[in-house]
Amino acid sequence: MTFDINCDMGESYGNYTIGNDDEIMPLVTSCNVACGFHGGDPLHIEKTLISAKKYQLKIGAHPGYPDLNGFGRRAMQLSEDELRTCIKYQVSALIGMAKSVGVEVSYVKPHGALYNKMADDEITSRIVICAILELDTNLGIMGLSASKTQSVAEELGVNFIAEAFADRRYDNHGRLVSRQDPRSIIHDPVQAAAQVFSIIRKNEVKSIEGNKVKLRAESICIHGDHKNAVAILKEIRKEMG
Amino acid sequence: MTFDINCDMGESYGNYTIGNDDEIMPLVTSCNVACGFHGGDPLHIEKTLISAKKYQLKIGAHPGYPDLNGFGRRAMQLSEDELRTCIKYQVSALIGMAKSVGVEVSYVKPHGALYNKMADDEITSRIVICAILELDTNLGIMGLSASKTQSVAEELGVNFIAEAFADRRYDNHGRLVSRQDPRSIIHDPVQAAAQVFSIIRKNEVKSIEGNKVKLRAESICIHGDHKNAVAILKEIRKEMG
Amino acid sequence: MTFDINCDMGESYGNYTIGNDDEIMPLVTSCNVACGFHGGDPLHIEKTLISAKKYQLKIGAHPGYPDLNGFGRRAMQLSEDELRTCIKYQVSALIGMAKSVGVEVSYVKPHGALYNKMADDEITSRIVICAILELDTNLGIMGLSASKTQSVAEELGVNFIAEAFADRRYDNHGRLVSRQDPRSIIHDPVQAAAQVFSIIRKNEVKSIEGNKVKLRAESICIHGDHKNAVAILKEIRKEMG
Amino acid sequence: MTFDINCDMGESYGNYTIGNDDEIMPLVTSCNVACGFHGGDPLHIEKTLISAKKYQLKIGAHPGYPDLNGFGRRAMQLSEDELRTCIKYQVSALIGMAKSVGVEVSYVKPHGALYNKMADDEITSRIVICAILELDTNLGIMGLSASKTQSVAEELGVNFIAEAFADRRYDNHGRLVSRQDPRSIIHDPVQAAAQVFSIIRKNEVKSIEGNKVKLRAESICIHGDHKNAVAILKEIRKEMG
Repeated sequence: MTFDINCDMGESYGNYTIGNDDEIMPLVTSCNVACGFHGGDPLHIEKTLISAKKYQLKIGAHPGYPDLNGFGRRAMQLSEDELRTCIKYQVSALIGMAKSVGVEVSYVKPHGALYNKMADDEITSRIVICAILELDTNLGIMGLSASKTQSVAEELGVNFIAEAFADRRYDNHGRLVSRQDPRSIIHDPVQAAAQVFSIIRKNEVKSIEGNKVKLRAESICIHGDHKNAVAILKEIRKEMG
Repeated sequence: MTFDINCDMGESYGNYTIGNDDEIMPLVTSCNVACGFHGGDPLHIEKTLISAKKYQLKIGAHPGYPDLNGFGRRAMQLSEDELRTCIKYQVSALIGMAKSVGVEVSYVKPHGALYNKMADDEITSRIVICAILELDTNLGIMGLSASKTQSVAEELGVNFIAEAFADRRYDNHGRLVSRQDPRSIIHDPVQAAAQVFSIIRKNEVKSIEGNKVKLRAESICIHGDHKNAVAILKEIRKEMG
Repeated sequence: MTFDINCDMGESYGNYTIGNDDEIMPLVTSCNVACGFHGGDPLHIEKTLISAKKYQLKIGAHPGYPDLNGFGRRAMQLSEDELRTCIKYQVSALIGMAKSVGVEVSYVKPHGALYNKMADDEITSRIVICAILELDTNLGIMGLSASKTQSVAEELGVNFIAEAFADRRYDNHGRLVSRQDPRSIIHDPVQAAAQVFSIIRKNEVKSIEGNKVKLRAESICIHGDHKNAVAILKEIRKEMG
Repeated sequence: MTFDINCDMGESYGNYTIGNDDEIMPLVTSCNVACGFHGGDPLHIEKTLISAKKYQLKIGAHPGYPDLNGFGRRAMQLSEDELRTCIKYQVSALIGMAKSVGVEVSYVKPHGALYNKMADDEITSRIVICAILELDTNLGIMGLSASKTQSVAEELGVNFIAEAFADRRYDNHGRLVSRQDPRSIIHDPVQAAAQVFSIIRKNEVKSIEGNKVKLRAESICIHGDHKNAVAILKEIRKEMG
């Protein structure tokens, strides 16, 4: 049994380190590289792309809202033009830098509050996905399973990669529990791995309310800034055999 | 008699407008588009590229130091890795956005304090030009005539576009007089045009000390934030016939 | 007849100029000084405070969301702690700089999207006003007339300065028409002055729907980045006699 | 035997954590609080001030160059006006926030590249110290022992707090070895403590070239982002008895 495991990387900024990219790299199969607006900077982006090449990972662009202080996790009301160009700029920067080190960006996974907005809002999904299509019609979109992101991507004929989270709780609607809620994050590696295999093998997840909820995913996401990220990945790998 | 006239554009930022791009666009032949670090933002970059397409201008990427508050005009000590990736990021962003609107970036012209540093410093020129080559070996470099930028570009086999300035005074060494000096800027359109035609026809410029100095240039630069930029351009156009 | 006229100032940033502070200064009585997050920088703040001193203007701190690219006009979801400290930091910076040039900050007027959020949202008003009280209980609050800002300020025993706008249209609820609506801005100086005197003399304004709406104000705001700001002020001054 | 131990704190930014402030707080006697330009943000500043109050630490403002990506460690050419106002803004913000939580800023310690520039450059020291005097003539200056910072402070009648570093190597001139040099940082807690007690007891330090160099200090600095900061502090405390 194999499946894709993705992780947000390259989110360190200047003297600030976030995540544990060096240890995580060998344990995942796809790498979502920050593009410099919510996190990441040119130096860490290049470093990340070179590592991703070494480990032969699939590479995704990981653009976010222009809010470094909020790490792209605060909702922001951008106009359509602002959002479209904000995406085009970030993804273009990553595509060019990837090409220069000999790798290719194959998909885009929006970050944080933008990711969540797209999941629930068709208009936002359409703006972002159309922006990506303006750059390269071969790019895929990674997003929340059974979301507006998925329906819009499919309508526009874009390859959609449904993902689920190893380290986050779901509600009865199959949506992520907000980070405001202290229960939203799964800290225990064994529980996280159990959630992953429930999703992969049975297409279901146990909600925070205790119900079984349908959830299909082609890729499993681990958050690199989760303090147990490496332990969770090792637990998953152990189970994968 | 024809020659290239270039202008820095797309340097507006959010609600802040700088330059007079709409009036300048029809009067120049090349457009150096800000890349978002010293000025410019994704929205203004796209708008500028679309205008440049309309007027069929040659397009250059115009990257600068990461210093919006200083408009890239303050010297900054970046490490080699910081500088290389800072250039690659900005130029990549512009290349991708240009391609998405159906135009092509054909050269790079560094901005402000970086431009000046390159003119005098071989190591900085080498870092920047090598960074550009990592992205696309067909890109040209625009820079100060008879500078380290030129010698390094030629050594590396890169197409160098020597430029001279219509609106800035030169010293006896053919270097720009610093903006700190109140005499550094030519305000009078007639004087600016006279300097241009002296450079184009006679390959010489009158220095601030009053001497004739040799100066060869393939392109003439007008600063878009000069309050008389449009008047200077019209004066040049009048003389060109 | 006299009344207070306030204007947002000091919003220029680095090489970017916004508004026409030099011409507006002599024509207003209160000056809302940007605090560096949505606009303004230390250099322009000091310059503005020194001018305000020369013209003996009342001085307000004008803090906004941390979003220079959006000029503080885009709604942002800050946590309570983020919002409180974001206000305290900005207002403290202004208070200290004002004191150093021999003037005093007497009120706070929040900016842009934050101003609008406070007008409609009691919780946001409470967070911001409590933040200000933590700094100095003598500071007044300037805000939209008949808003949540007003009711919370009064409940907390803070001096509230109700303001109305010379250059913006109102709806039937006495709220500002959104800047998204092309009719939201009054361009004609005569119309703007007429709105001002309707508010001052009759406590009413004509809404965009054509109705008379009650509106009380102790201060009239002119937007410094309105291209006719000076003309509007001169029209008002003419009528004031 | 007692002496002051200071540490740079509050340099975390948004989702980015730097240093180990919680563990370091109880082990030092003075706390240099970042002011938001090279590091720190309003939320972390307030949090740091509240902790400093709890542990009854002396509080210093720790302003730096406006360069978050470079963490204030890259030399930047600011004009005199830019530098003066950049300092006034940051220190004012900190003074106000400190006062609001019931503590007082008693000194200023410039950060990073600015700290180093002041040590060697009289003009820069004068600009910064005069800026601080414009805010409050009772503020002290913390800086490098036997530096231009010290001589200018003394000339201007400002209380100067000479500091030395536990975790950095010195050269024969009593200057810090540049961070570019891999030997510049002392990693071993025992060696760091030995350097501290050599300075405190004998007013001398062993240079990187192996010589004894005179060095007087009233305060010992520990870098909070040093991975062994806590271990070094515990080693010093053990020796202090």
